[in-house]
Amino acid sequence: MSVAIVSKLQSFPLFSEHLAGWGTVLGHVRSKHFSHDDAIISHGDAAGQLCVVLSGWVKLVRLTPDGKETVVGLCARGDVFGEAALFAHASYPYSAHAIGEQTEVALVPASELRAALHNDPELSAHVMALLGERIHNAQLKIEQMSTLSAPQRLGCFLLNLCKTQGGSALEIDMPVEKHIIASYLGMKPETLSRSLQQLGGIGIKAKGPHISIANVQALQEFVCGSCGESGMCRTEEELTDATRA
Amino acid sequence: MSVAIVSKLQSFPLFSEHLAGWGTVLGHVRSKHFSHDDAIISHGDAAGQLCVVLSGWVKLVRLTPDGKETVVGLCARGDVFGEAALFAHASYPYSAHAIGEQTEVALVPASELRAALHNDPELSAHVMALLGERIHNAQLKIEQMSTLSAPQRLGCFLLNLCKTQGGSALEIDMPVEKHIIASYLGMKPETLSRSLQQLGGIGIKAKGPHISIANVQALQEFVCGSCGESGMCRTEEELTDATRA
Repeated sequence: MSVAIVSKLQSFPLFSEHLAGWGTVLGHVRSKHFSHDDAIISHGDAAGQLCVVLSGWVKLVRLTPDGKETVVGLCARGDVFGEAALFAHASYPYSAHAIGEQTEVALVPASELRAALHNDPELSAHVMALLGERIHNAQLKIEQMSTLSAPQRLGCFLLNLCKTQGGSALEIDMPVEKHIIASYLGMKPETLSRSLQQLGGIGIKAKGPHISIANVQALQEFVCGSCGESGMCRTEEELTDATRA
Repeated sequence: MSVAIVSKLQSFPLFSEHLAGWGTVLGHVRSKHFSHDDAIISHGDAAGQLCVVLSGWVKLVRLTPDGKETVVGLCARGDVFGEAALFAHASYPYSAHAIGEQTEVALVPASELRAALHNDPELSAHVMALLGERIHNAQLKIEQMSTLSAPQRLGCFLLNLCKTQGGSALEIDMPVEKHIIASYLGMKPETLSRSLQQLGGIGIKAKGPHISIANVQALQEFVCGSCGESGMCRTEEELTDATRA
């Protein structure tokens, strides 16, 4: 694989530590470009590869027997999916599809990955901690579905988009279609539209995919004041630092 | 620790495999009895122990800054909580309280646990797979909160209670108070009561904590027909086997 892809991977939390342990694995990673709606992995297939988003967006979806599609995850640059590849004899519990025409994904072969984990207990502990973080994030999402209102859940999603941009007023673009975000947040598309309107009360204006946030701190107070993760949330912390700067 | 506790632990999935690897750890496990509402671990404390329920029930709870308590987990015999103890420098992301007067919990010290994982890559892979299962279960719960109706979610909870009992008609008792189950299922107590009434249409009758299920298969059809896990769910499989037998 190219040096460029190795250096991209090394900028992500999964690979930035224990580089020696990743050594042989990285030599087997290849990257692939996907067009809009291309299937990257399929629900039920043997988990042969761990996937890391290099650019673009990926949606993780599941289908119910009565035909409802749910978006169970939305992955951006640096996010990992297909973690079933870490476990022997596992199959993917969801399908992954590219969103937009600019999606590039690094594919890490399961066999090399598991061999590296077997040979390096430090690497294994590191990956285990990342799995722990993933459990925690999923549990937090379950909690938020009970404790936060729809506008607050949408507000939390917007805060996460703001995180990397900083400043006390922001212009952002919704990265994917609104019905996908609605499904990911566990609400109907019409609830998402209504929630966006309600956020107008604290200075948030939407025009198509474009969102302007007059006061990030006001949005934070509206969302985080009702969230059980408040005081321990990385997004909250980074935004507070950014708006103070 | 007593031989009785070691043999109890060895009957649970976490410990039933890789017994050699668990050897030294099991020597450091102690068990403790808790009374109703006793705190077993506290949100934010350094994660010093992995906990395994030996008997009774345990609720895992989180508080929001505005004072709402959410039940993020309900653990019965054999269930594990406090998995933050697997990771260095982690703190518990929830508090755990005993339900009822009969709760006994095995406490596995984090330092011995992590040393064993470090020394035994097979054990480490086994624990990682269990973490993977936990991620999957949390993601499934997120999906169900979007795709299943409140009566279907309650139905799924009842099916899990039925699992170990078998037969095509069942009498079960709600193991914990209804408002705790409601919070765990992400619904208001009055929604749970209404959902129980709606399940009357497929032969489910409730009298206080006592539930009679006239036809487990009818309940399965009502719930699993709308669930993305159908065909891959262990509860569904075991119940189908039991009602066929």
